Amino acid sequence: MSSALPTTPLAPNILAGLERVASIFDAQLASDFPAVEELCRHVERYRGKMLRPTLVIVSGLSFTRDGAELRAEHDIVAATIEMIHMATLVHDDILDDATVRRRGETVNFLRGNETAVMLGDYLISNAFHLCSRAGDPSLNLRLGEVTNTLCEGELVQLSRRHDLTLDEATYFEIVRRKTAVLVGAACELGARLAGAPDADVRAMLRFGERLGTAFQIQDDLLDLLGDEATVGKSIGRDLEKGKLTLPMILHIASTRGNARIAALDAIDAKDGAALRRALEASGSIEAARARAVSIVEEAKRGLPRTTRTGAQELLLELADRVVARDH
Amino acid sequence: MSSALPTTPLAPNILAGLERVASIFDAQLASDFPAVEELCRHVERYRGKMLRPTLVIVSGLSFTRDGAELRAEHDIVAATIEMIHMATLVHDDILDDATVRRRGETVNFLRGNETAVMLGDYLISNAFHLCSRAGDPSLNLRLGEVTNTLCEGELVQLSRRHDLTLDEATYFEIVRRKTAVLVGAACELGARLAGAPDADVRAMLRFGERLGTAFQIQDDLLDLLGDEATVGKSIGRDLEKGKLTLPMILHIASTRGNARIAALDAIDAKDGAALRRALEASGSIEAARARAVSIVEEAKRGLPRTTRTGAQELLLELADRVVARDH
Repeated sequence: MSSALPTTPLAPNILAGLERVASIFDAQLASDFPAVEELCRHVERYRGKMLRPTLVIVSGLSFTRDGAELRAEHDIVAATIEMIHMATLVHDDILDDATVRRRGETVNFLRGNETAVMLGDYLISNAFHLCSRAGDPSLNLRLGEVTNTLCEGELVQLSRRHDLTLDEATYFEIVRRKTAVLVGAACELGARLAGAPDADVRAMLRFGERLGTAFQIQDDLLDLLGDEATVGKSIGRDLEKGKLTLPMILHIASTRGNARIAALDAIDAKDGAALRRALEASGSIEAARARAVSIVEEAKRGLPRTTRTGAQELLLELADRVVARDH
Repeated sequence: MSSALPTTPLAPNILAGLERVASIFDAQLASDFPAVEELCRHVERYRGKMLRPTLVIVSGLSFTRDGAELRAEHDIVAATIEMIHMATLVHDDILDDATVRRRGETVNFLRGNETAVMLGDYLISNAFHLCSRAGDPSLNLRLGEVTNTLCEGELVQLSRRHDLTLDEATYFEIVRRKTAVLVGAACELGARLAGAPDADVRAMLRFGERLGTAFQIQDDLLDLLGDEATVGKSIGRDLEKGKLTLPMILHIASTRGNARIAALDAIDAKDGAALRRALEASGSIEAARARAVSIVEEAKRGLPRTTRTGAQELLLELADRVVARDH
């Protein structure tokens, strides 16, 4: 993300912020034990777009005066949210039996599920410890609430695996919980720590939640349509693990007769190529993509007025990138 | 534990405290989702001796005047520590491929590893959220440090599986991290929240850490010698999973020639009966038991002077029970 930031007067602030976040992240995970240290270095290689820390920083800058700096708490919250995200990646890769992440091997593939379970726990624990270092109990409370919601979303998703009756409303509730709330919290807390008015903080939360939802739909599409070399992680996991994603749900709800049967058979047989053909034919892939774009448009329309020069354009650009990405 | 409390003037306070802790614990985990709710109810059945909450309460009472009540923070910390403990049980059962816990089925056995990973995460997250509700950032910071240490202990133990060169010093360092620090924190925070002087708080931390260490040695012995019906959980897991425990380490260090070969062969073959015979013959089981007893004696000698009538005797009794238990 950093190298691909749009041309903006805020680019130096964002780059400097992301470097501070990376330093805090790495220092928090330092361990005297070589076995632990090595695992943490491996996980640091998963760091890619840094979408969530970028959103904390940009949301924070959006509500400051030109020339003003962010607070130290912004960096801590950004690093905490990224660490929570990393923990979910490590544990999700166990749930998905994934072997590739960021073009490298996953921890579960490389070192076994046991080590991946404990490394994820170590990341969660360190995230909460890091957050506590800010000394503001309201941050712990809010992020604890966010991770409770996130785990509930994952548990509900697990309980509905291989359930072909999963409907759109439940899908969006699962996505809100497992993905959107954390992205929402990044925007919310960035703005709140910068002293934004309550109404703007709430609007930034909604902006982030919408981005997170669109991000997840794009992830579903990449898992269905992308190739591993470009996406950089194991794909086809949703079908393999019986997770019904938006294009499949839209197809099942909108087709009847042979068209529906073709997709259901492909899901049962875990036949990705046949599933793609059926979903393309019914327009369900295009419909899911359109839904993601319309959620991003809704997010952009709901953006509150920001105070810093260049911030509004940057937030709009970041929103567009969520659905334009191919990895 | 509650029904088996020694006769003490403090019994009513402890029972009332444990009931408050159980209520806080259950209320924290309540979920609108039946799938999540059902899993939490299952985990609540794991609640047994409640050693850690009991230690928070007794350590707290120890530094109050007769007739005084504990603070609300005591209950929150006690419930938080029990929830952290439950999370480690759920994840440990994955690491150990255990099928039985508290005479019931484990979550991983009943619902698969994926659900057990996420349920453990949900418990960790809720533990931190609950702790944040006390509004005291120093509690979050301390318990975050404790869980960091705990996960490091587990990661180091995992990295040394099947390593027959594991020595006593490393064994005790692993045990300190994965078990003793949490029991230590229960005693430390109980005393600190009651306003105990710093020196006494430190002494209570050491008391708890020693109890935790002796507790782990007793757990090792039960895994090696106990039967599943009495212990109430899967046994023989240490040998199965290549975890060298104290009796094995003492045997390997103290024997030479055929006696050593017999144990090493039994470990390689995962032959529990042959291993028990070898360790009995060399006196290593008795030596490990004696070590646990001597650590408990050390804990008792280091107890600080307490202010409340009956507290000292109760702490001494709780210490003795750690090594007397058969489950």
